Amino acid sequence: MGFSQKHLLGIEHLRPDEITAILDLADQYVDLNRRDVKHSDALTGLTQINMFFENSTRTQASFELAGKRLGADVMNMAMQASSIKKGETLIDTAMTLNAMHPDLLVVRHPHSGAVDLLAQKVNCAVLNAGDGRHEHPTQALLDALTIRRAKGRLHRLNIAICGDIAHSRVARSNLILLGKMENRIRLIGPPTLMPSQIGEFGVEVFEDMREGLQDVDVVMMLRLQKERMDGGFIPSEREYYHRYGLDAEKLSHAKDDAIVMHPGPMNRGVEIDGEIADDINRSVIQEQVEMGVAVRMAAMDLLARNLRAERRNQPVEV
Amino acid sequence: MGFSQKHLLGIEHLRPDEITAILDLADQYVDLNRRDVKHSDALTGLTQINMFFENSTRTQASFELAGKRLGADVMNMAMQASSIKKGETLIDTAMTLNAMHPDLLVVRHPHSGAVDLLAQKVNCAVLNAGDGRHEHPTQALLDALTIRRAKGRLHRLNIAICGDIAHSRVARSNLILLGKMENRIRLIGPPTLMPSQIGEFGVEVFEDMREGLQDVDVVMMLRLQKERMDGGFIPSEREYYHRYGLDAEKLSHAKDDAIVMHPGPMNRGVEIDGEIADDINRSVIQEQVEMGVAVRMAAMDLLARNLRAERRNQPVEV
Amino acid sequence: MGFSQKHLLGIEHLRPDEITAILDLADQYVDLNRRDVKHSDALTGLTQINMFFENSTRTQASFELAGKRLGADVMNMAMQASSIKKGETLIDTAMTLNAMHPDLLVVRHPHSGAVDLLAQKVNCAVLNAGDGRHEHPTQALLDALTIRRAKGRLHRLNIAICGDIAHSRVARSNLILLGKMENRIRLIGPPTLMPSQIGEFGVEVFEDMREGLQDVDVVMMLRLQKERMDGGFIPSEREYYHRYGLDAEKLSHAKDDAIVMHPGPMNRGVEIDGEIADDINRSVIQEQVEMGVAVRMAAMDLLARNLRAERRNQPVEV
Repeated sequence: MGFSQKHLLGIEHLRPDEITAILDLADQYVDLNRRDVKHSDALTGLTQINMFFENSTRTQASFELAGKRLGADVMNMAMQASSIKKGETLIDTAMTLNAMHPDLLVVRHPHSGAVDLLAQKVNCAVLNAGDGRHEHPTQALLDALTIRRAKGRLHRLNIAICGDIAHSRVARSNLILLGKMENRIRLIGPPTLMPSQIGEFGVEVFEDMREGLQDVDVVMMLRLQKERMDGGFIPSEREYYHRYGLDAEKLSHAKDDAIVMHPGPMNRGVEIDGEIADDINRSVIQEQVEMGVAVRMAAMDLLARNLRAERRNQPVEV
Repeated sequence: MGFSQKHLLGIEHLRPDEITAILDLADQYVDLNRRDVKHSDALTGLTQINMFFENSTRTQASFELAGKRLGADVMNMAMQASSIKKGETLIDTAMTLNAMHPDLLVVRHPHSGAVDLLAQKVNCAVLNAGDGRHEHPTQALLDALTIRRAKGRLHRLNIAICGDIAHSRVARSNLILLGKMENRIRLIGPPTLMPSQIGEFGVEVFEDMREGLQDVDVVMMLRLQKERMDGGFIPSEREYYHRYGLDAEKLSHAKDDAIVMHPGPMNRGVEIDGEIADDINRSVIQEQVEMGVAVRMAAMDLLARNLRAERRNQPVEV
Repeated sequence: MGFSQKHLLGIEHLRPDEITAILDLADQYVDLNRRDVKHSDALTGLTQINMFFENSTRTQASFELAGKRLGADVMNMAMQASSIKKGETLIDTAMTLNAMHPDLLVVRHPHSGAVDLLAQKVNCAVLNAGDGRHEHPTQALLDALTIRRAKGRLHRLNIAICGDIAHSRVARSNLILLGKMENRIRLIGPPTLMPSQIGEFGVEVFEDMREGLQDVDVVMMLRLQKERMDGGFIPSEREYYHRYGLDAEKLSHAKDDAIVMHPGPMNRGVEIDGEIADDINRSVIQEQVEMGVAVRMAAMDLLARNLRAERRNQPVEV
């Protein structure tokens, strides 16, 4: 059926074959990025604007490199230091940028749903680079590509997502993607860090790491995001590490060839033991970063193809 | 006669035919920017440096996109966080940048006259992106292009500039440009927000919006710039909106096809009613932003042509 | 023998013929930068990342322009506002960037040795843009190129380095480079601003400016870096200027054709008199900035050649 999306707002809107289309193209960009001359003309003459209303050095860098390697004109806008301060509304800011004729708009915003709202107002392709506790689709796609390359497939795997799930858009997007691809998912963490409506996803929930990790193929650790915890139970780092930090002993309950993932940046000694993170036989944390650039190149390439096709059919009124 | 300027420091230095030359070329760039592949080679191999001593996300973005779409190597320098802090003088900073051989220097500075001073010290083309209360020539040019496209001409129009005129370099540059093109200009606002020497511009002054807007073709609203008011009378926002905020009733006094302009970012409910701002039959606020990129492309293209011609005739000694 | 370095971490690792190779290529880039179309394809398709853990507008700008003019995809990362704040270690940050497949990594860091450590962890070429009080190799190279062009040679010159030598990586890298090229070096400054282990460099030390400047060919002034002085003796600016500030009278003790250098940004009236700084017959301060871009282009070009050659021989495992 092909990839028929206008925007990349969340995994929830993607069909399994669309997910596969992105990952297949991303595999080609992995090869390109490993060459000396890491360049394509896929986005030449197009304008990509990165609007980050929340700081994220690594995600922004990944999108920036992706666009530059595809030949786009890339512009970063530090939205915190910007006209927002002067009392302008989000929509007015978006409309202003839209009038500059961007083709791809990459947006991170602290409020869930803000990126969807914005996509309705502009006539270019919008990529969600993380909105509140809602979605972070390119993170889930890069995780999927990493798993598929390590395990040879992206279905019928036992996958554990561990830690601070309640505050994590990474967990949410991964849950949706891995569910769509028919994997068995377990959530492991303290009840206080579990989302309230967990039933809808059809997952198993564990409080005990050793029990939950039994025979899994993939261990996805999450960053303990203290900055997102507003009141409520905040565990001490030492207690958290003791019960939920991934170390060699806890990992021994997983399959012998289980891989270890983390979206970064890591709190070593809090949610993950440093030696596990650095174990090149188990940890694919660096490969996740590499896949991130490739997946973003693939997503922007596919969206640009659809944008061009749409414009050919319905010339945009200005 | 052609466009014979070395710098774009202010509207006051431009002849009417030079203004027309910029707007004519900008019309072509409007078309380019609406295409998929929005790229030209006009500035290929040239270096553009944006030096913003005052924050301005939208103006800097407009210049950055303009340069990138013309193929220049564009570099942004956040001058607030820079060597200025280390006690370096403005002139030393400029000389340092000049030694890196930029071709186009885009400068915003909080002090009137600072950009002119700087232009005397460097051997590249300088564009004033706003200096104190003095000039903001590309804003006046983009406003002129917007008016010319909406009204079919740029002369013999009745144009009202409304609001905080005393603190506004936008108003000042517009007054000069619209006067040169032989329009009839009215200034509307409280006496405390009127410049002291108003006589020199040959304009009509009104305190009452309804009276001033009578039969105008163009309504230019200004942002209430509280950050520029040092002491003196500061109106309450509510009172200001009541007397000077543009709403449907006040606008009804203008011509039926009068257009509404605002340089942004807008304070909705302060100087302008949100519904008026969003009325696509009256408001050209988004088009102003679009014209901004095109006018900056045209200005930089023309300046670069003159720079190259000058260098061919008088090779620069280094 | 050719330039056989993998990284540019410090002058101490360079052979004299390697220094000459960089300067010879830089001379060609000086010519390129003075043209209208200042562009080459030397780094096309390669990715350059600038990681500045310490603010430095001018050095970062110089590296950014150098990379862009050579056709690289250049990305700046403001590391202060970044994941470092989220508790990530330097090595994890470096490994993350490395996974994005940069080819050239330009790093400034407040700790001596941090850049060397980082170079061991990544598989791209690393350029030290200043680390603590250790080295600043491109500054020493640009100073060397400036001297060679002004004096016609880079050996058997009498060179005085004056001022705050103890806190200066610029002084340290210059000392090493100028020593390797067989010049006679004098250090002039108050004993409290002299490094403790001065013997190793085989230099003469003077407390008195007039005595130390006697018959020198080159006067290198240093910036008084109050921000690096932790406790200890801090001279008053007035007293410092009186004793160590370079003015016409003190300079009269040097050779008639002695040149005056300063790495910038200058404290006029502290370490140098404004008139001396602006005297185009003596001061080469602007030329130093110009040489900076050229030397960085040459260094990155040579490192990229070695990187490509190494990859052809030993394809990198990922």
